Amino acid sequence: MVSYQKKYIAYKLRVESRLNRCMMKQEPVSLCEPVSYVLSGGGKRIRPLLVLLSCEAVGGVMEQALPAAVAIEILHNFSLVHDDIMDHASTRRGRPTVHKKWDESVAILTGDELLGLAYRELLRTKSPAIGRVTEIFTDGVIEVCEGQAYDKEFEVRHSVTMVDYLQMIAKKTGKLVSVSLELGAVIGAGSVREIRALRDYGTHIGRAFQIQDDYLDVVADEEEFGKKIGGDIVGGKKTYLLIEAYQRARGEDKKLLEAIIMNGGTSRRNVAAVRKIYEHYGVLASAQSMVAQSIARADKELKVLHPGQAREMLYWFSEMLANRNF
Amino acid sequence: MVSYQKKYIAYKLRVESRLNRCMMKQEPVSLCEPVSYVLSGGGKRIRPLLVLLSCEAVGGVMEQALPAAVAIEILHNFSLVHDDIMDHASTRRGRPTVHKKWDESVAILTGDELLGLAYRELLRTKSPAIGRVTEIFTDGVIEVCEGQAYDKEFEVRHSVTMVDYLQMIAKKTGKLVSVSLELGAVIGAGSVREIRALRDYGTHIGRAFQIQDDYLDVVADEEEFGKKIGGDIVGGKKTYLLIEAYQRARGEDKKLLEAIIMNGGTSRRNVAAVRKIYEHYGVLASAQSMVAQSIARADKELKVLHPGQAREMLYWFSEMLANRNF
Repeated sequence: MVSYQKKYIAYKLRVESRLNRCMMKQEPVSLCEPVSYVLSGGGKRIRPLLVLLSCEAVGGVMEQALPAAVAIEILHNFSLVHDDIMDHASTRRGRPTVHKKWDESVAILTGDELLGLAYRELLRTKSPAIGRVTEIFTDGVIEVCEGQAYDKEFEVRHSVTMVDYLQMIAKKTGKLVSVSLELGAVIGAGSVREIRALRDYGTHIGRAFQIQDDYLDVVADEEEFGKKIGGDIVGGKKTYLLIEAYQRARGEDKKLLEAIIMNGGTSRRNVAAVRKIYEHYGVLASAQSMVAQSIARADKELKVLHPGQAREMLYWFSEMLANRNF
Repeated sequence: MVSYQKKYIAYKLRVESRLNRCMMKQEPVSLCEPVSYVLSGGGKRIRPLLVLLSCEAVGGVMEQALPAAVAIEILHNFSLVHDDIMDHASTRRGRPTVHKKWDESVAILTGDELLGLAYRELLRTKSPAIGRVTEIFTDGVIEVCEGQAYDKEFEVRHSVTMVDYLQMIAKKTGKLVSVSLELGAVIGAGSVREIRALRDYGTHIGRAFQIQDDYLDVVADEEEFGKKIGGDIVGGKKTYLLIEAYQRARGEDKKLLEAIIMNGGTSRRNVAAVRKIYEHYGVLASAQSMVAQSIARADKELKVLHPGQAREMLYWFSEMLANRNF
């Protein structure tokens, strides 16, 4: 167990040292400063880890997938910078967001530059499949935009079904995870079956990750979670929990949830009441079982792969994800 | 002459019919509607024309460069949508800008999606040099962002030299023109010399285009130009004219220009006075000679190419550019 944690840290450092090299330029200052700020802002670097492990899992050499791993992390940060503008978020990983520290123009341009830098890094991949690698990456860019568009649409739409929700998170969160695994497997020259299995592993853990995120918003330890509990409820966010609870609830409970949906949020003093509703109708348990189910499906995909350290570490990864409280 | 105009229109139609196919999707509505709105908004489609002509000029078949031509046009529109947000522009080609017709979030996401669609289209290029094609395109994305960053920096910086200015327009406007020509030549499998010559042709006409733009802001016919004369003066934009005039002017004239620079603009009733200063110090003539010089340099590059219709049309193109009044 400890050795996986160590390997994760080692890979994270490799990615971060390469990220540092992407921001060696000094000018234009108004662009290079915020780019450095974003890329040095930390984060779990989960997506690059998955690129690297996926490459290894099909018998490839980790180094070959390093540019793609870094590119995926930059792409992820591009979407965070732009989403933070749209969501009027003022902090990210404990620091002011780019549009708060500078302004919106700087944040728009920083995101754009990050996307360009992501492609530049990706194109450093030495692979005969570079065309396909770039296509997979581009599909990721487009779906992440579409996922964000649905997410914004849902904010003002009163009726969002579970099917709508699952499709949205598949695009907004899941796609980049499955792209990470697909890229690693393609660069590592995996077989068609291996590539498909790893991509689907990504799809399932992407879903697990997002539903766990919705769950943690209600039950996490505030210290470990790093943000205030119940933010989604206060903001009227149509999460797995709210959508499922609205389906199940009756009487006064349903009225309260309906008010939250109609008003696009509620006062912080309603958080406890909503949590009670979630518990009462078994919605928290349902979310947990959905996470467990997705993880089980993800792990099942891994059976296609040759046994070995990389595969073991992917099992370790999904288990860690299922039990995370941060 | 007429035949070149006809060919231009024919190529423009090919590009537009392919652009239409990029926006076949219907959902998410909040993203597909503004994407269609932008791509169907017209424009001269000059960059795609240059991609196609460049491909032909090295002996390639136009069809092969069509995806890259369309990709460049989408990339250009991506930068317009985001720049319009940053510049608080309310109209573009006689229609409301995306952030005015919808809102800023929609405009940010529309730009991002356009960039993704541009890459998707580019990757449809059938060429053994697809890796290099994508690299050239990516350098374009990054430099356009940097050019825009300099442009925004210059808005609040009091001292901008002619060297600063020329570097900025080379990135913001020139790069995409030279990338257009370079892409066409690479896809058409031109020789190293041909590719370099066409790229440099693009660099020179890109510069000519931008300085002509600065010039037309002061002297164009308002009807043909499609916007009010003197906008750059009112907005205190550090154009070729203002920078050069500030260098040359003395006494009261210099004081007026200094006030415009310091205050970041001036009242519309000063436009005539500034125009007089530009005339008095020979700045308009200097701009015209700079345009002519750039065009001459551009044309000189074409000597490397084999004689033929495509080369002739590039000569026609630069002459048209030098004499444009729109």
